[in-house]
Amino acid sequence: MTVAIADGGRTADPAGGRNGQARRLGIDSGQEPVVYLHRDSQVVHSEGFATETRVRVGAGARAILATLNVVTSPLLGIEDVGLSDAAWRRLSLREGDQVDVTHPPPLDSLGLVRAKIYGRRLDAESLDTIVRDIAELRYSDIYLASFITACAGGRLDHQEVVDLTLAMIRAGERLRWDAPQVFDKHSVGGLPGNRTSLIVVPIVAAAGLLMPKTSSRAITSPAGTADTMETLAPVDLDLAAMRRVVEREGACLVWGGRARLSPADDVLIRVERPLDLDSPAQLVASVLSKKAAAGATHVLIDLPVGPTAKVRGYGEAARLSAQLREVGAAIGLEVLPVPTQGAQPIGRGIGPALEARDALAVLRGGPEAPVDLRERALLLAGHLFEMAEAVPAGGGQGMARAILEDGRAWKKFQAICEAQGGMRTPPVAPFTCPVPAQRAGRVVVVDNRRLGRVAKLAGAPHDPAAGLELHVRLGEPISRGQPLYTIHAAAPGELDYALAYAEAADGIIGVEDA
Amino acid sequence: MTVAIADGGRTADPAGGRNGQARRLGIDSGQEPVVYLHRDSQVVHSEGFATETRVRVGAGARAILATLNVVTSPLLGIEDVGLSDAAWRRLSLREGDQVDVTHPPPLDSLGLVRAKIYGRRLDAESLDTIVRDIAELRYSDIYLASFITACAGGRLDHQEVVDLTLAMIRAGERLRWDAPQVFDKHSVGGLPGNRTSLIVVPIVAAAGLLMPKTSSRAITSPAGTADTMETLAPVDLDLAAMRRVVEREGACLVWGGRARLSPADDVLIRVERPLDLDSPAQLVASVLSKKAAAGATHVLIDLPVGPTAKVRGYGEAARLSAQLREVGAAIGLEVLPVPTQGAQPIGRGIGPALEARDALAVLRGGPEAPVDLRERALLLAGHLFEMAEAVPAGGGQGMARAILEDGRAWKKFQAICEAQGGMRTPPVAPFTCPVPAQRAGRVVVVDNRRLGRVAKLAGAPHDPAAGLELHVRLGEPISRGQPLYTIHAAAPGELDYALAYAEAADGIIGVEDA
Repeated sequence: MTVAIADGGRTADPAGGRNGQARRLGIDSGQEPVVYLHRDSQVVHSEGFATETRVRVGAGARAILATLNVVTSPLLGIEDVGLSDAAWRRLSLREGDQVDVTHPPPLDSLGLVRAKIYGRRLDAESLDTIVRDIAELRYSDIYLASFITACAGGRLDHQEVVDLTLAMIRAGERLRWDAPQVFDKHSVGGLPGNRTSLIVVPIVAAAGLLMPKTSSRAITSPAGTADTMETLAPVDLDLAAMRRVVEREGACLVWGGRARLSPADDVLIRVERPLDLDSPAQLVASVLSKKAAAGATHVLIDLPVGPTAKVRGYGEAARLSAQLREVGAAIGLEVLPVPTQGAQPIGRGIGPALEARDALAVLRGGPEAPVDLRERALLLAGHLFEMAEAVPAGGGQGMARAILEDGRAWKKFQAICEAQGGMRTPPVAPFTCPVPAQRAGRVVVVDNRRLGRVAKLAGAPHDPAAGLELHVRLGEPISRGQPLYTIHAAAPGELDYALAYAEAADGIIGVEDA
Repeated sequence: MTVAIADGGRTADPAGGRNGQARRLGIDSGQEPVVYLHRDSQVVHSEGFATETRVRVGAGARAILATLNVVTSPLLGIEDVGLSDAAWRRLSLREGDQVDVTHPPPLDSLGLVRAKIYGRRLDAESLDTIVRDIAELRYSDIYLASFITACAGGRLDHQEVVDLTLAMIRAGERLRWDAPQVFDKHSVGGLPGNRTSLIVVPIVAAAGLLMPKTSSRAITSPAGTADTMETLAPVDLDLAAMRRVVEREGACLVWGGRARLSPADDVLIRVERPLDLDSPAQLVASVLSKKAAAGATHVLIDLPVGPTAKVRGYGEAARLSAQLREVGAAIGLEVLPVPTQGAQPIGRGIGPALEARDALAVLRGGPEAPVDLRERALLLAGHLFEMAEAVPAGGGQGMARAILEDGRAWKKFQAICEAQGGMRTPPVAPFTCPVPAQRAGRVVVVDNRRLGRVAKLAGAPHDPAAGLELHVRLGEPISRGQPLYTIHAAAPGELDYALAYAEAADGIIGVEDA
């Protein structure tokens, strides 16, 4: 067999490559595909492949780049080509399929990344080339980390951020809606329970605005909007089904993972997260590329500000707002950033079903509805009405309140759930346990991050019913022994585990003498 | 069980962790340790661990940081903790040992890397903290790539390079020799066959200078100096054995991998290589930290310059030389960079045994000794004599030539081999095949990189006898059908394979009309 081979990325020479039989090892190595070959296999020997070599794995007409791990045990046969879950999925393999492993074609865009590291600007064409390679999963984690670092710390100018955003849009699908104005919202995150989308979308849609909302699942948080919505209705809709829902109801609340909207963003975000590089340029390109790709024309952005939220201060929020607006304008999006309270969670529940219950209570207007969640949703929906010029400035919130209070939002929400496949009742966890205050005093700190961790230890979002219910608010006086929050879990072991962490970790809810 | 746990790197809380039984999976995942846990294992469930999470793996008093891969197949039992080869080695495990997997302690030095990305200088203490974490293998590849990128492109000033070098020295062992002057040499690489150390070390030691030489094995080349020397004598000596050799003979030629000299360098180099970021600052810190840690006071640096060598032009060589000298001076090292010819390989052989044969021929003064290898070695040894002020300026090469020609160097080399455990005869490959010129003309190009690739396809350095012998030199007239080089291999399959690549890849040896 002769296939294309490239030597270190310079010249392509015909030679090399060996067939083997695909074996699914059942190892989830993350988004970077891994191929496993035995040390004594012919391809390792003859190609001089070593662990961590980047290789091309071909199966029929499909091919991916993968990182090689050499197997030194009888885990694999000499003729086997083991594949990680990501590699297996992307090649659509069946056990025993013939695959060939060869040297990869040159990845010329790495030269552009190096040029950026050495201080050169990236033009639109260079960014298109880099982002296309990223979206096609041709970059290893090492290359992704290098690109992200080279662009962080203010090293992208305004035009580079615009070009990066446009490149990210072009690298995936782009939805088009038959309407002059298409609304969307996004929250910059870091705040548990902030599920305003489930309330804002039906309010706005009930007034006749188009709002085809795609959301993400949790990556490191106890619940994403898609996870929460999934306890109320199916969210894993393909593009055709999503279109039918939007055509019928003017809105949807679906998981965006099927649509390949700005796929480079999904790749970059997985490496940005461990690097913890909250580069404003990348945040702007990430958020705006997703929204533009989803077909939005008007985007409201909720920026929670607080000591344990993503945006820590109002100065930072103002700078980020300006950049969001300016880059939005350059790519033809009207963007309205809204800094909001981010010092403590919104609503009472943390975890998919518990957050869904809060949203339902607001939509139904029940007495147990969390006021902060309702008011936050009304603020955001009001801004959207004013962006749409559906009301004069200052009248948006009143309009939103009317639609919520007279039941139109609730009716629209039910209709959206029906259109997506039928409304469901969120599950209830069989095991619960309160965490009491160790002392009396006043609540002065609520640690969003560590509360999220308690909810995750209890099983969220894997168990949609798991999580916690928060009973206190900043500034409230409490007595010793009063429950601060209640943990919900699907099994006694997980309950104990979350409880052990909660009891040992001091100061998740900080209390001072009143 | 209760162990230290840290939540995202901020606060350490007591909780978490689960025991399991160690299982060696026999997967070489590279230097970054990987731990494999079943999706349904208690620790994955209760800790909320996901693939790519960084975890702490403890076994008795030892602990490492590792990256998690979640297993979705019966490859592992629910109670098993699978470990990659690197993880297994570092924890010194036996099958079935109890290990626990928990959240890792905070890695505070990442905050310093972020500060650098945002444009702040790194002071000596910050660099010490970062480099210590790197040497202890606490950085994942993503973090390493980010640190390397943040320091590349001229973003380290002179003092930062000095402090980085000192930090790299401090992060490992440092050898001390009971002598006022300790000599060393290094070649910046990229040039096959450039095995001058095997000749320079005995010449210099025969004159009474101290030269305890540690070398590396090949990482991507067909042979490292340690691989070549290993075909002539044992090189895998521990520190005590190395000291005995040096005390007896004034010199050694051993593999440096046992000594933990500048261990951060070994970690960084594995990620720098795929990034292909030849940052002068990192090159300087890498070379000088290794040499200073090995106890050198006087270091000669061979800088081969050529279109397919690491240093491409003489301007680049001059800038690099100045930086090497200045940083050397700041850390108390006398450094002499020597730019040399790098347009074609040195000597005839490429591959461990074939390169050893060239060096032996020079030492023995046989008629088949490659002139270029001999003259290069005499040039470098002469410079070392002049650095030592053993001769007046200009007299070094003559002194070196006398020591080589009268057999003292050969005698010293044999004595060093004996002291290291006994001299060996390099192996000879059973299969050889010449690659003939396709046309007559004059040799105008020799592609170092692709010649190295032919040698690796033939089996070097895995098979020490494998590689190739080069028969022509730049500028030589050749006739059609004349052998350009001969491939050596341990098996017919490898010979065919290297031959197929050689025949298909046009222009490895470029020929033009005479």
